[in-house]
Amino acid sequence: MLHSQPEIKALYRSFAAAHPFEYQPKALYEPIDYILNVGGKQLRPALVLMAANLFLEDIAPALPAAHAIEVFHNFTLVHDDIMDEAPLRRGMPTIHTKYDTNTAILSGDVMLIYAYEFLLQSPAPYIPNIIKAFNQAAIGVCEGQQYDVDFESRNDVTIPEYITMIRLKTAELIAGALQIGALIGGTSPENAAHAAEFGRNIGIAFQLQDDILDTYGDPKKFGKKVGGDIAQNKKTFLVLKSLELANESTAHQLNHWMNTTPSSENEAEKIAAVKQIFTDLDIPTHANVIKNKYLDKAYEHLNALDAPEARKIHLHQFAQKLVHRDI
Amino acid sequence: MLHSQPEIKALYRSFAAAHPFEYQPKALYEPIDYILNVGGKQLRPALVLMAANLFLEDIAPALPAAHAIEVFHNFTLVHDDIMDEAPLRRGMPTIHTKYDTNTAILSGDVMLIYAYEFLLQSPAPYIPNIIKAFNQAAIGVCEGQQYDVDFESRNDVTIPEYITMIRLKTAELIAGALQIGALIGGTSPENAAHAAEFGRNIGIAFQLQDDILDTYGDPKKFGKKVGGDIAQNKKTFLVLKSLELANESTAHQLNHWMNTTPSSENEAEKIAAVKQIFTDLDIPTHANVIKNKYLDKAYEHLNALDAPEARKIHLHQFAQKLVHRDI
Repeated sequence: MLHSQPEIKALYRSFAAAHPFEYQPKALYEPIDYILNVGGKQLRPALVLMAANLFLEDIAPALPAAHAIEVFHNFTLVHDDIMDEAPLRRGMPTIHTKYDTNTAILSGDVMLIYAYEFLLQSPAPYIPNIIKAFNQAAIGVCEGQQYDVDFESRNDVTIPEYITMIRLKTAELIAGALQIGALIGGTSPENAAHAAEFGRNIGIAFQLQDDILDTYGDPKKFGKKVGGDIAQNKKTFLVLKSLELANESTAHQLNHWMNTTPSSENEAEKIAAVKQIFTDLDIPTHANVIKNKYLDKAYEHLNALDAPEARKIHLHQFAQKLVHRDI
Repeated sequence: MLHSQPEIKALYRSFAAAHPFEYQPKALYEPIDYILNVGGKQLRPALVLMAANLFLEDIAPALPAAHAIEVFHNFTLVHDDIMDEAPLRRGMPTIHTKYDTNTAILSGDVMLIYAYEFLLQSPAPYIPNIIKAFNQAAIGVCEGQQYDVDFESRNDVTIPEYITMIRLKTAELIAGALQIGALIGGTSPENAAHAAEFGRNIGIAFQLQDDILDTYGDPKKFGKKVGGDIAQNKKTFLVLKSLELANESTAHQLNHWMNTTPSSENEAEKIAAVKQIFTDLDIPTHANVIKNKYLDKAYEHLNALDAPEARKIHLHQFAQKLVHRDI
């Protein structure tokens, strides 16, 4: 049967609840249950299950891999939060804040290993291809994170480089989740590759949408603080495209703001000034053009994916929701 | 053919040399080649190959898994060195010192993923069992590291708890290396389990020998500083057995020293005093008795292992060298 979104989430949640990290030593495992239970959209495990449900009536065989993806995703958050010195995650203290940095390193490490432990609970014949797809995504996340760090100290980042970074950091895991679900569904690696490409392109479109919303989103609906990217001098698509299109004077002005760490008083001034530059250069339109290019590519692969059309409905809805969201 | 030890090391070294981490971004991968090339005994990959050579004439199929084990081992060193704030590793700056802590976290993470990437290059039918064995070892290393940290702030650590800790932290990876090599050799999981048990018991014996040598070793031959464990208040077997056997006055004296952080002047005094307590209580004899118990268990499993006796010679020699070493 085709499961509804709430059914898929409920199935995943009961699998996760039935597999608590209640092992010894407690100091290693307790932080894992903590971080897995502070909330989060659990989007990635849902994607594994949706992809499996394209081909399978009973999606139970995909539940361990769905959990693997969620455990891996949370591992990346735990280590990223150390690197970013972030005190909060989803409004709750991060592991290195609540416990300490060494705990966050070591509990994160064992989470990464447990991701593979859950992948191993997938149907045996698919395991090598599943782990291959997982590794590609996992290596991508690390490489994307490193590029993101590298870009902070570079002033010559190009738009293709930026797209590569967001593909690696964000889109590869979405691609991997869908690919792994499709593989567990029993489809051919070639067909599963269409699921992956759908996810990869949707992931890039999603991040471009996130860049737009970070400046132009409705503060009441956007999950993060509107203007946060500008305040933190993040070299998003909006900035890179502005630098490409701006005349010398505007580029100078933008670079000035990008090298300013605002006090709390003049942060609003900075956000307003940079936003005005974006708007004057019609950057949201440019961002939407490229976003739609990736969205179109995603739909091409969704169409090419050999699965019952009626089963693809959730992936269509997912793409719509993700990219046309204003939150 | 049965490969000699130097042949095995040479085969491994050429595989490793042919697989440099020459990928992008350089800031992520360069530290990995750095740490893999600062030396080290490359004992664990040799064990994978020795175990495969019990059953195979051509050990080439085991080379990627051998490298996986070495990459994993070095990942644990990179993250442990952050946690221990260690400036040097094998006489060279650690990654978090030479680069920075964030690099050490992220490069370490990607090393762990690449360990699985190399495991995937093993013969396909064995991959699920190989990864299962690997995960057991990898989870063990993390749990052992956490117990080691936990024990620092506990005053009631028992000898069985200590043995569990060293088994997890040191012996499980030796067990996993031998088990994986045997699996790639094509032997049954039951037979490969004997290789694992041999390694597990040898690993515990090895660590007990290390505890003895840390206090009683020849300073000219022992790789680390003699007396280092005492200076750092490490609760080794020697300390725990002393506390078990000591009368109240001696226990009081030992606890006093164990709660003293020596200045560089009175460090030698502390080491001499604690060593005298060990010697008076005949602790080296007790340590040798328990070490030999694990050694005997290891030999039992080596005998039970179904492989040509002539092929087992290197594992015998390995056990002899590891445990009767004075370095």
